[in-house]
Amino acid sequence: MYISVVGNSVCGDEIGEIAREVGVEVARLGHILVCGGLGGVMDQAAKGAKEAGGEAVGILPGRDREGASRWLTIAIPTGMGEGRNVIVAMAGDAMVAVGGELGTLSEIALALKMGKPVVGISSWDLGGENKLPIVRVEKPDEAVRVALDLASK
Amino acid sequence: MYISVVGNSVCGDEIGEIAREVGVEVARLGHILVCGGLGGVMDQAAKGAKEAGGEAVGILPGRDREGASRWLTIAIPTGMGEGRNVIVAMAGDAMVAVGGELGTLSEIALALKMGKPVVGISSWDLGGENKLPIVRVEKPDEAVRVALDLASK
Amino acid sequence: MYISVVGNSVCGDEIGEIAREVGVEVARLGHILVCGGLGGVMDQAAKGAKEAGGEAVGILPGRDREGASRWLTIAIPTGMGEGRNVIVAMAGDAMVAVGGELGTLSEIALALKMGKPVVGISSWDLGGENKLPIVRVEKPDEAVRVALDLASK
Amino acid sequence: MYISVVGNSVCGDEIGEIAREVGVEVARLGHILVCGGLGGVMDQAAKGAKEAGGEAVGILPGRDREGASRWLTIAIPTGMGEGRNVIVAMAGDAMVAVGGELGTLSEIALALKMGKPVVGISSWDLGGENKLPIVRVEKPDEAVRVALDLASK
Repeated sequence: MYISVVGNSVCGDEIGEIAREVGVEVARLGHILVCGGLGGVMDQAAKGAKEAGGEAVGILPGRDREGASRWLTIAIPTGMGEGRNVIVAMAGDAMVAVGGELGTLSEIALALKMGKPVVGISSWDLGGENKLPIVRVEKPDEAVRVALDLASK
Repeated sequence: MYISVVGNSVCGDEIGEIAREVGVEVARLGHILVCGGLGGVMDQAAKGAKEAGGEAVGILPGRDREGASRWLTIAIPTGMGEGRNVIVAMAGDAMVAVGGELGTLSEIALALKMGKPVVGISSWDLGGENKLPIVRVEKPDEAVRVALDLASK
Repeated sequence: MYISVVGNSVCGDEIGEIAREVGVEVARLGHILVCGGLGGVMDQAAKGAKEAGGEAVGILPGRDREGASRWLTIAIPTGMGEGRNVIVAMAGDAMVAVGGELGTLSEIALALKMGKPVVGISSWDLGGENKLPIVRVEKPDEAVRVALDLASK
Repeated sequence: MYISVVGNSVCGDEIGEIAREVGVEVARLGHILVCGGLGGVMDQAAKGAKEAGGEAVGILPGRDREGASRWLTIAIPTGMGEGRNVIVAMAGDAMVAVGGELGTLSEIALALKMGKPVVGISSWDLGGENKLPIVRVEKPDEAVRVALDLASK
């Protein structure tokens, strides 16, 4: 299966370590990681997947591979800017969101709209009247396991 | 200026009337309305704009004009599915969200990510830790006026 | 109906005049012109359509309206670069190509692939083994008339 | 490097064998093959790349992986229809066209427009006034070697 991992292009050590562990777990279980291909959460998730011997696919916003994470095993430029978020969401059988800001929120909303399960760690808290149907978990391995479970149903 | 109006493709009478009044106001002030071109909020906003003698542009998800609102003065098929949400967000100098579900949330997030002001009526209540920087208003004419003000800055 | 007019973003006076007359004819017959929204053939076709009181829609490659023809009545930025060529082709019920280089060839090929009729004036001569099924005409009004005829079938 | 291989989704044995050999050569030299991910030339090129132990990336037109070649090592749905041709062209440092019809011609034109070298085997013969700057070769290994040479310049 393909797991989309989304999050901010700049992140602190703690979020980065969570993203890396998500990447490790996706690869360790034999699945393919897809991300937006840049820095921060994307970079660390790709690092984890590659270190664990798996595939890390980056769907890049630009027209070339400039700025791409060096951990990607496959880097695909799209020239579509934020439009590539749609492909990141579509390419996953499930999505794991680690932290994240507005770009991540757009990816979460798109994935949910497409009917795909989304699991979040330290990600958007959409309380208030309209709660988002994100499954919240605490740990990276749990995030991947839940995402795979939901995608299998 | 161009104002993107976003919301659900199915809506009740109350939300529909708000959308229509937003469309009227955009056109009355001489601006161009852009929307996703289908039913519900999109249809009613287009109706308002057209009735007030203005332009209503629909950026359609499909490969042809099937299902397009009959009130559009310009209908552009894209064949991109939810990918057209990116264009709807990009085409506006500001966005007005009326109600809305997941597709609308993706459009709000994309517009904010692009640095565009977003004004909401009865739209996403994103309480909790991460509040979205949406300006909340009550009335259609106020929504359009605030959106235009913010876009002029 | 919608007629896509495609051609180079830089052109000489002769080709420009043909493009302008194509735009005039599209508008005079009550149809909507769609183009790539930049200079050259696009600019002149839009000028013709607007001067004749019609609509000239530009589907722009950039993320904003910079560089857009000032004759457009509707300008839609897409942020997709050449990717917008797909929308230009899809939005027309038929295509008229005036002159043109590689970008134009991609639009012709995409329109033909989508099953849309393409009429060319001084455009790609694809002789040799694989002739393109473009209808070649000499005059702007003939181009528009033939395009509309073919689109009506 | 990344080599885009384009051609028809249905092909005879001879063209299929050429495509397969192109795929083998791309992988044998340690490069990554990108294609449109469906049948015919795409399928056979992917088969060659995979059999030679390399990567075969498919950029799919649909919203899911239905109809994808079973030889792909990575399959990315885009939901963009022909719009994915732009990504196929953009993702390659060079393009090899094997046979091909209108979709292939659009990919060739887009790649040339983006400044990428294109090598053709039994592909578009664009004689007449406007010859396309495609390098024509006879053999699959030569096609890949020339494409890589040109991309390195």
